[in-house]
Amino acid sequence: MGAPLYRDRITRLRKRLREEDLDCVWIVQPENRRYLSGFRATDLQLIESSGSLLINEHDSLLLTDSRYTEEASREAVGFAVKTVQNGIIKGLAALLPDLGTKRLGFEKDYVTWGIHQELEKELNSLSPPVELVPLDGVVEEMREVKDADERVALQASADLLSHVMGEIIDYLEPGLTELAVAWKVEKLAREGGAEDLAFPSIVASGPNSALPHAVPTDRRLEQGEPVILDLGVKLNGYCSDMTRTVFLGAPSPTLKQIYRTVREAQAAAIREIRPGLETTFVDSLSRNLIKQAGFGDYFGHGLGHGVGLATHEGPRLGPRKPTILKKGMVVTVEPGIYLPGEGGVRLEEMVFLTGQGAEIMTRDPHFYDW
Amino acid sequence: MGAPLYRDRITRLRKRLREEDLDCVWIVQPENRRYLSGFRATDLQLIESSGSLLINEHDSLLLTDSRYTEEASREAVGFAVKTVQNGIIKGLAALLPDLGTKRLGFEKDYVTWGIHQELEKELNSLSPPVELVPLDGVVEEMREVKDADERVALQASADLLSHVMGEIIDYLEPGLTELAVAWKVEKLAREGGAEDLAFPSIVASGPNSALPHAVPTDRRLEQGEPVILDLGVKLNGYCSDMTRTVFLGAPSPTLKQIYRTVREAQAAAIREIRPGLETTFVDSLSRNLIKQAGFGDYFGHGLGHGVGLATHEGPRLGPRKPTILKKGMVVTVEPGIYLPGEGGVRLEEMVFLTGQGAEIMTRDPHFYDW
Repeated sequence: MGAPLYRDRITRLRKRLREEDLDCVWIVQPENRRYLSGFRATDLQLIESSGSLLINEHDSLLLTDSRYTEEASREAVGFAVKTVQNGIIKGLAALLPDLGTKRLGFEKDYVTWGIHQELEKELNSLSPPVELVPLDGVVEEMREVKDADERVALQASADLLSHVMGEIIDYLEPGLTELAVAWKVEKLAREGGAEDLAFPSIVASGPNSALPHAVPTDRRLEQGEPVILDLGVKLNGYCSDMTRTVFLGAPSPTLKQIYRTVREAQAAAIREIRPGLETTFVDSLSRNLIKQAGFGDYFGHGLGHGVGLATHEGPRLGPRKPTILKKGMVVTVEPGIYLPGEGGVRLEEMVFLTGQGAEIMTRDPHFYDW
Repeated sequence: MGAPLYRDRITRLRKRLREEDLDCVWIVQPENRRYLSGFRATDLQLIESSGSLLINEHDSLLLTDSRYTEEASREAVGFAVKTVQNGIIKGLAALLPDLGTKRLGFEKDYVTWGIHQELEKELNSLSPPVELVPLDGVVEEMREVKDADERVALQASADLLSHVMGEIIDYLEPGLTELAVAWKVEKLAREGGAEDLAFPSIVASGPNSALPHAVPTDRRLEQGEPVILDLGVKLNGYCSDMTRTVFLGAPSPTLKQIYRTVREAQAAAIREIRPGLETTFVDSLSRNLIKQAGFGDYFGHGLGHGVGLATHEGPRLGPRKPTILKKGMVVTVEPGIYLPGEGGVRLEEMVFLTGQGAEIMTRDPHFYDW
């Protein structure tokens, strides 16, 4: 993605900072960092950061240590790379006075209590002291609306996923274990160019299909059972997410009925979803249909979520906390019905919100017309 | 791992709690959670926890939501599984009064500032209020000394890694890209039974070998160059970590010299390392040898780190912050010399500290006797 894109994002962030009365922000969260700078490194663990951003009205700095200096210099667009010694806290404290910082924003949902405490101590000892101000999802909110380049990247990720889904459905047969299917998914994704899966694959067969977040096991697929395939790939940083429910042979009448209900519930939401609607209203379109069919107690999760650099991001589509959908958002629509002991069905598409409605990004045709 | 093991860990934790004057702890960090309970789930992201532990003098509770209830009930040993509604913060606040908690320990290096703030508000409104007390690596410290079952698990992980390393070294040839080699590593690991890599593989060829934390690129391996292979697998939760430097054909005299130096520096540390020594002293055994050979400026990282449920854990072996090595610790010994533009060499073994000395756990024989 090109320099103008990152410049535009920084400009929009700076506008938000003025609104929040902040003169500088410190960005540590890996997807936020990548969104603003293009720096692609991941963090080995929470306490092993590969770098962070310091952005004020005039400067865009990427602070890292010597292990990542070269990668940061190559990847970050429009940022001056500073290699800090003795850890990030001392590094920040050394830079802030020259930047004239008085109120520094930090990501309250990513910075740990311990880091905050150490940093606060250090910043209080500066003269004048720097105040730490919690940011509540400022960059996350920017990320909810995708720009043209991101739409292209997300479509490429969804296309690869559709290809993988098709191959996997052809590959399924009784006798394979869920784990073997999950590993086949990973091979197809990686050999197709994905740098990673977007999340651990869900391959849930028979009774396991009644668990919305089942982890693949060594259970073998059997004739006539449902198999829920909830898969995602990460391509050039962008995630995709799709679910199909497949039957190896003819299912029971109850399973056929819940399949039909889920498919109608999904179609009802996709038909109506568009910018300007409330997330809770869209959720209710599917949910009411499932309730009317008598399965209201068996759809225990929200209807969907935003997808981008993270698999799960804003906006959330659920029965609580209404927010307004906007043009350029990419969300999943994934109703499900889970009958304990009997089995479950979930169907999921990723959709892009155009000016008027929604365009389905996941293009796999494996549905049953019962 | 069996019930007595987990019981013993909880007993030792309770002893620590009495020492810290805490009547309860809340454990969220995934490796700590697994270490104490056996619950294997991972977290999709920092803000999407699969569960947490609440442990006091009499009770061991695992709090999770309905997505993970079944897995938690199957995996957690000696814990009562509680499914909470409306999020973990409300869930904790509802349970603590009945447990008689007054001072609740939390993991300061894992709990975010935002969660801490919300929780503090909730706990202050209880009567009597519950005080939040930061834990500074209490469980992490327990994890540093491995018990007999962990030694077996780590040896199995190291054995699989040694097998993968051997296959990869046979597979290397000029023309392959670093990324292709990295993907081959992952396939061998997963098909050999690993649930994951322990960390993203480092496959650094030619000039990239001068970057200690190089990320694999589409650069093709060439004749005569060094290739640093820093690989790790995760098997049944336990990580392994090993590095070999391989030459495709005859290297330059300088590279031969740094290879010899690194190998001698490693041997010097492995010969001496044993319980009772300070970590800084062991680091100096390798570091001084590298300095004497004239390459002191080109060994910029610590000598090693503990390995267990996490790839990087305590103790750290470096030139600063001395701690005493103990019997049962598993650490890496990994000196390196990196000449910018020219190339680098790193060699790494995982060793187990016995009563008298160290036993090398990584068993790959691919060395050069220059």
